[in-house]
Amino acid sequence: MPIISGEDFIRRIGAMKPTIWLNGQKVKERLPDHPEFNGILNSQRLLYDIQNKPELKDIMTFQSETTGDIIGTSYLIPRNKEDLVKRRHMIQTWAKETGGLMGRSPDYMNTALTAFASSAHLLEGKEGCFPERLQAFYENARQRDLSFTHTFINPQNNRSTLAYLDENTLNARIVDRTSEGIMVRGAKLLATQGGITDELLVFSTPSTRDISEAYMFSIPTDTKGLSFVCRQSFLTSQSSYNSPLASRLEEMDSIIIFDSVVVPWERVFIYDNPYAVSDLYRDSAFIPLNLHQAVSRQIIKLELLIGVAESLVRSLAIAEYHHVQEKIASMIKGLRTAQALLFYAEEKGEEQDGVYLPHRDTLYMAVNLFQEHYPKYTEMVQHLGASGMISIPSEEDFQSQMGNDLRYYLQANSLNGEERVALFRLAWELTMSSFGTRQTQFERFFFGDPVRVTQTIYQTYSFEEEMELVKKFLRDEEQ
Amino acid sequence: MPIISGEDFIRRIGAMKPTIWLNGQKVKERLPDHPEFNGILNSQRLLYDIQNKPELKDIMTFQSETTGDIIGTSYLIPRNKEDLVKRRHMIQTWAKETGGLMGRSPDYMNTALTAFASSAHLLEGKEGCFPERLQAFYENARQRDLSFTHTFINPQNNRSTLAYLDENTLNARIVDRTSEGIMVRGAKLLATQGGITDELLVFSTPSTRDISEAYMFSIPTDTKGLSFVCRQSFLTSQSSYNSPLASRLEEMDSIIIFDSVVVPWERVFIYDNPYAVSDLYRDSAFIPLNLHQAVSRQIIKLELLIGVAESLVRSLAIAEYHHVQEKIASMIKGLRTAQALLFYAEEKGEEQDGVYLPHRDTLYMAVNLFQEHYPKYTEMVQHLGASGMISIPSEEDFQSQMGNDLRYYLQANSLNGEERVALFRLAWELTMSSFGTRQTQFERFFFGDPVRVTQTIYQTYSFEEEMELVKKFLRDEEQ
Amino acid sequence: MPIISGEDFIRRIGAMKPTIWLNGQKVKERLPDHPEFNGILNSQRLLYDIQNKPELKDIMTFQSETTGDIIGTSYLIPRNKEDLVKRRHMIQTWAKETGGLMGRSPDYMNTALTAFASSAHLLEGKEGCFPERLQAFYENARQRDLSFTHTFINPQNNRSTLAYLDENTLNARIVDRTSEGIMVRGAKLLATQGGITDELLVFSTPSTRDISEAYMFSIPTDTKGLSFVCRQSFLTSQSSYNSPLASRLEEMDSIIIFDSVVVPWERVFIYDNPYAVSDLYRDSAFIPLNLHQAVSRQIIKLELLIGVAESLVRSLAIAEYHHVQEKIASMIKGLRTAQALLFYAEEKGEEQDGVYLPHRDTLYMAVNLFQEHYPKYTEMVQHLGASGMISIPSEEDFQSQMGNDLRYYLQANSLNGEERVALFRLAWELTMSSFGTRQTQFERFFFGDPVRVTQTIYQTYSFEEEMELVKKFLRDEEQ
Amino acid sequence: MPIISGEDFIRRIGAMKPTIWLNGQKVKERLPDHPEFNGILNSQRLLYDIQNKPELKDIMTFQSETTGDIIGTSYLIPRNKEDLVKRRHMIQTWAKETGGLMGRSPDYMNTALTAFASSAHLLEGKEGCFPERLQAFYENARQRDLSFTHTFINPQNNRSTLAYLDENTLNARIVDRTSEGIMVRGAKLLATQGGITDELLVFSTPSTRDISEAYMFSIPTDTKGLSFVCRQSFLTSQSSYNSPLASRLEEMDSIIIFDSVVVPWERVFIYDNPYAVSDLYRDSAFIPLNLHQAVSRQIIKLELLIGVAESLVRSLAIAEYHHVQEKIASMIKGLRTAQALLFYAEEKGEEQDGVYLPHRDTLYMAVNLFQEHYPKYTEMVQHLGASGMISIPSEEDFQSQMGNDLRYYLQANSLNGEERVALFRLAWELTMSSFGTRQTQFERFFFGDPVRVTQTIYQTYSFEEEMELVKKFLRDEEQ
Repeated sequence: MPIISGEDFIRRIGAMKPTIWLNGQKVKERLPDHPEFNGILNSQRLLYDIQNKPELKDIMTFQSETTGDIIGTSYLIPRNKEDLVKRRHMIQTWAKETGGLMGRSPDYMNTALTAFASSAHLLEGKEGCFPERLQAFYENARQRDLSFTHTFINPQNNRSTLAYLDENTLNARIVDRTSEGIMVRGAKLLATQGGITDELLVFSTPSTRDISEAYMFSIPTDTKGLSFVCRQSFLTSQSSYNSPLASRLEEMDSIIIFDSVVVPWERVFIYDNPYAVSDLYRDSAFIPLNLHQAVSRQIIKLELLIGVAESLVRSLAIAEYHHVQEKIASMIKGLRTAQALLFYAEEKGEEQDGVYLPHRDTLYMAVNLFQEHYPKYTEMVQHLGASGMISIPSEEDFQSQMGNDLRYYLQANSLNGEERVALFRLAWELTMSSFGTRQTQFERFFFGDPVRVTQTIYQTYSFEEEMELVKKFLRDEEQ
Repeated sequence: MPIISGEDFIRRIGAMKPTIWLNGQKVKERLPDHPEFNGILNSQRLLYDIQNKPELKDIMTFQSETTGDIIGTSYLIPRNKEDLVKRRHMIQTWAKETGGLMGRSPDYMNTALTAFASSAHLLEGKEGCFPERLQAFYENARQRDLSFTHTFINPQNNRSTLAYLDENTLNARIVDRTSEGIMVRGAKLLATQGGITDELLVFSTPSTRDISEAYMFSIPTDTKGLSFVCRQSFLTSQSSYNSPLASRLEEMDSIIIFDSVVVPWERVFIYDNPYAVSDLYRDSAFIPLNLHQAVSRQIIKLELLIGVAESLVRSLAIAEYHHVQEKIASMIKGLRTAQALLFYAEEKGEEQDGVYLPHRDTLYMAVNLFQEHYPKYTEMVQHLGASGMISIPSEEDFQSQMGNDLRYYLQANSLNGEERVALFRLAWELTMSSFGTRQTQFERFFFGDPVRVTQTIYQTYSFEEEMELVKKFLRDEEQ
Repeated sequence: MPIISGEDFIRRIGAMKPTIWLNGQKVKERLPDHPEFNGILNSQRLLYDIQNKPELKDIMTFQSETTGDIIGTSYLIPRNKEDLVKRRHMIQTWAKETGGLMGRSPDYMNTALTAFASSAHLLEGKEGCFPERLQAFYENARQRDLSFTHTFINPQNNRSTLAYLDENTLNARIVDRTSEGIMVRGAKLLATQGGITDELLVFSTPSTRDISEAYMFSIPTDTKGLSFVCRQSFLTSQSSYNSPLASRLEEMDSIIIFDSVVVPWERVFIYDNPYAVSDLYRDSAFIPLNLHQAVSRQIIKLELLIGVAESLVRSLAIAEYHHVQEKIASMIKGLRTAQALLFYAEEKGEEQDGVYLPHRDTLYMAVNLFQEHYPKYTEMVQHLGASGMISIPSEEDFQSQMGNDLRYYLQANSLNGEERVALFRLAWELTMSSFGTRQTQFERFFFGDPVRVTQTIYQTYSFEEEMELVKKFLRDEEQ
Repeated sequence: MPIISGEDFIRRIGAMKPTIWLNGQKVKERLPDHPEFNGILNSQRLLYDIQNKPELKDIMTFQSETTGDIIGTSYLIPRNKEDLVKRRHMIQTWAKETGGLMGRSPDYMNTALTAFASSAHLLEGKEGCFPERLQAFYENARQRDLSFTHTFINPQNNRSTLAYLDENTLNARIVDRTSEGIMVRGAKLLATQGGITDELLVFSTPSTRDISEAYMFSIPTDTKGLSFVCRQSFLTSQSSYNSPLASRLEEMDSIIIFDSVVVPWERVFIYDNPYAVSDLYRDSAFIPLNLHQAVSRQIIKLELLIGVAESLVRSLAIAEYHHVQEKIASMIKGLRTAQALLFYAEEKGEEQDGVYLPHRDTLYMAVNLFQEHYPKYTEMVQHLGASGMISIPSEEDFQSQMGNDLRYYLQANSLNGEERVALFRLAWELTMSSFGTRQTQFERFFFGDPVRVTQTIYQTYSFEEEMELVKKFLRDEEQ
């Protein structure tokens, strides 16, 4: 049966030999045994197991129309609204397992690949484009239930409006085309879970003007010449008391360096064609389907944040204060807004070349609002927690000779000190720890700099109905 | 045919003799001929005419299940989602005629009466309550297509938390109960369109604790002892060039003074029962249906505001600036949010005692967001218009000897000076004139002080799902 | 004695025959008798009388070092910090009379002329520049205690970054240079008090690149060919009860049209030299001294606003609510900030070519903060006043048969209805009337679009100390 | 010579044997050798050395009027404005060494003790008060140049308005009074640098109503029965490249548990007198002088933050974008505001019982503005840094085989990858690391919950001048 189990996943990742650098050391251990990666890989394992639960079968899987195999819903091309709703249920079922905190749960990239493949026809007849390879690759991936990460951000070295005039040689680019394939050299940034998935999908920034930077391909994580350099780890404790989130969900981000990596032709979907890249990005199912995945996940994350906030309020007995009510009410309104926008986007979706797509503009707005809201809400949690966000002894303290004193002196309304510190540690880790602020930064820039997202929203809006209403009051109509 | 025409309406209002004080003078003219009231009454007339348009029949009317008569949709008790959607179409059809700026278009109070009547069973068997009179009154009102205003706000003289300890004698209250009916003395505030509708529906503030202030009744506008004292008028010109909005939509607000007004028993629905009043307010269809009306209308108002904003942007050729894009994008997001929340509330509605009600909490959030958004957006329009919001000569200037100079020197991108000033006058009147700021204040406090609305949202929220998610990360689950 | 009395002022203005268009009519009355202008001219009269009060002599006047005459302090070139402080006292003494609401009280433009004259040396030896005429003009103006308005804003027809490529022919520009002087044709915007002062000082926008738009000159208000076209008036009542502010302080703004106006050479200070114009603007005492005037005045305006806000709070007995405390506290902090910045700017001022100038950057920040703060604070007042900002009957109502009822029913804590409505009318007029919103718009754009002011603040800041501190943490210093 | 050197300090702290619990272990090492504490103790050492620099003698020290000894300026009771300014120079000289990030640099508590001692007369003749002991203690402390921390916050277990009704037994309180002294049992929160200073000054929360919780005393850090339980450490690397801030400035916060601690009488300044405690808090020099210290320090911290922000801007070449300009301009305005308020407070200070105190209200406003500003500004830095705040490899990576690649691929405008990552790590550590967010939380709640500080500002303001201005416009003055 094509969908894999958690154990299958761990076995497959454990067999890979990617080049990962962490703290100046090349990782030598089997990844599932490595203290840095075992938490996140275990959480991935649990997701794959959920896919196999019989009672969730209708949500998490579908039967392949071609092979009859049972495939994960994250690989489902939605043909109608029901498919889209099924996808949402799948996304949120997984997200509940991770509190919406795993940005690269398998559904994210599976959705991306599915979306690109469902739009492969856009590449037909274009130079340097191989739509049939893309489709075959997708078929293969879903049959094997492969896991992916991706990278498309270029090194951030000059962000001025004239930067394109630079002879910029840092970005990963094609340096040779041979009978074997294309050869790639340079760097890409910020591959979350870089090195710990089966595959790495690589594509250009949609705005590239340079032929040698215009490509789309996928390679196994342990391809020769490919190195992943990890950022500082935000995992500070393996204890799920001390670190209920990072101990399970520190995904790691890495810089990717392509040292003359050869990509075989059957894995090249586009090359040397900037227009094809930007057309595919703009016109394919990628944006609507991946925004749909993101917003579905963000809703769960926001629910967790609200749950934490309200738990603080109850533990401190501060529900009567207006400024407290206002903060939580803001968060609730933000949540309901996201839910309603998602719902609206699904209902107002439409079919395009056989794929039922959610309403793109609405999802852009949802994700843009989340960019504003999430950081604001995490700040509210900091306000609510106040000094309790700093008084955070550890599991070891509660197990020490001082344990009873701490349990007594740190009690709250209905919680003993150990329970109460567990709650405050969760709130702290979610909003103030290095792990939590990276989550905030991740959402703040999700799907692009908010300045750009805002611009897109403005520039693609029609204003037709609005202008019509204005006319009514500019004409002096005698009726 | 029960639904009336605009002419019918004007004739009926013209025949009334209410006591209205304006600028220290008792109004003596027939209302439709009075310079202060003819603009708004004419706009009401147009609304009634729309109700009669054959092509809008399916939206604007329904057939009475009892009499077979054609009744206005604003009197329709929604029995299912389709009825609710039909109501929205009716509301927005009317709102498009007024740019959403007429707070007391007939549908507002018709909806209120319809909602109360549909919940009349809540009054059954309670002391001082007459559910059958309420229902009969509703039947009669819809057959005659009556127009209403209402009042329930008490004089604003002490807002401290201890105010209820005052022997407060300003509020309108029952001072006698006789065989004829109840006698009412005192004041109520802020009846919009007070004096220019057929009827005045009066009910207590839901939080009243005082028996003599607990009532609900309706009386004709020209009832003996009833006086309407108008605030300063915000109508400064009858010219639709100078004043495209106020010349048509200045509704007037008035203070109502009850000088021993006798309300006959058949018009008394509740008296001397504070619990009945607050139960009806809280549990009837009133809040969900009137919020549904309000949000439907506000959406059109916001569309007009956005249309005006974008028109300014185009006239000044400033679409390229990020801060401009950000402002308009904010407004668009606010609009889509309102649309999605309304849609969600309709879809997630549920039947209650035979009435299909939209999702109340969601509509509360929508109206609360609008309280924040609308004032913010009007301020953005002021930013966009800049000095152009002050350089506003009048129609008379364009007709004078200076007209050609002004047409030339005040030109914008594609507009001559006269057209451009028309646009800026509209923007100014909507956001900066006394008429416009009253509109902003109206929305800011619509359905209650935002502080209270926020509190309600917080206090009625369940947090169940959110708390569930938190638990996941507080238990140290070995999996 | 050179300083004039209020009566002198009224007599002089009354004798002028400027061309003013109001509502499509050419003004024919003597200005001090005209219902539109007598309120503001009377307020100006009071300011001139204050200048003559013996007890204020030390603040309001100084003795000319050349003629020995008594001159108004607004014409004082500050030679040291004490002079600057004296100027502030003069400005605030006048501002207290007007609540800081008269943007063009005589000190504003007198300060401007004084500043330009004190920097006349900057024009020396430059083409098209006549520093000696500027200085002589200043000497003459202060001896005669002339009053001024000015204009420099061009018609607002295209604000895109490429607008300068337009052959823009709307702006007032020099169309001929003859033995008599220069001839000017075109339009300028937004002369506040345009037409009702002795003189009109005209200069180019500092960024002009066009020779024919580069000039600086002054002409009498009733110069041939000069027309002032007024915007819609915001004066709705001459009653100081109904309209405590506009009845005294509606200054009017006007569009100025130059129809081949000849400016005699002795009144031309700069022509055909864009560099001289922008150098004088940027490097003269104009910016520091006029910002000093503005911030001094704004402080008084803010005090009035705070006084009104706190009066509302007391009348409604709402001081106990946190959101009320927060609003007023914000306003107080804004006030103290402005006071401290002004004080700091005076103390950190420095002499430049014999003139003691306040610290320019600090004043730019103060004025930029006021651009943000003032609109925000007026909105807070609207929040505090709530429905009371709409229930505003007029003086005539209190004088009518309903007067006693209104006095009774509209009472507040310690005020009868008439007193309480007086307070709420003041709050309304200051923040919500057409007069009030124009005041808000005026402050929001005072000294330029906030976007530009912000840019200037950023671009002229040194960052030296700040960068020094950073270095400390980038070097790995072994100490 | 009384002022000590860094070496003296280290020796003295090294000789103490306090009971400190860290991660469930009792600290056994000599503190200056402990990896957790050596960074912060070394930074303290540097501060004491600065005090000894001959060229800083005039700023950092003064001569005792009684003993003739050279004393640290942090112990100086200001007798006039010059003393106050000298104190500011001392504070900022030290703050520059720490970037303003050391909340408990010696001047903070030295100022507190100095302030209390200078107001000892307030305790005279009051029950349970020993002003002469307080003064003697101060004399002794300054002669020995002791270092302090303090604690006064109670465990945060119930924050409702009715919490005082609880029989709350968690707070540290007097459980016995014997001939030896008072015996204290219970907990206090959040002693920053708890355990690593010479002394611990303890006082009640000013609002206590309970006699047994009303006290003020000081005890040596290694007093019997006293335990410090550390929160989780935020020190993740001793490398000043990886962790330029925490490696030097992680101060640690601890929970203090009093297990029947006996405080000898000569160290008890107040006991059993809640009124004396709250009077001393409210009326002594403590608030003005410690706010003066805080604001002086915060200014340096803000300068560092601005330096970091502008460095990011330059490294990314984004100075041309309006939203970037706006962010930095906000920060500059906040800085100048703080500087001006501090300056104003010093200038408007006044003598009180022989002590020259800065203007208290103004400093309250400054610190309250900083509570709002600092978190907002750190968020701006996160925006500016964008994805660069996540791509942060470590020193070890640059020293590894990948070093050259990273230096190349992570380069910015004028920085190689190693330099650029150093900058971004600094920005990240300051605003996003667990260390940085604790700094933000510290400032957000400095001198109390912003809700309370706001309330104090409102409730202690006079409004006299403001109400005077209002009257002008409420009277209908005929002039």
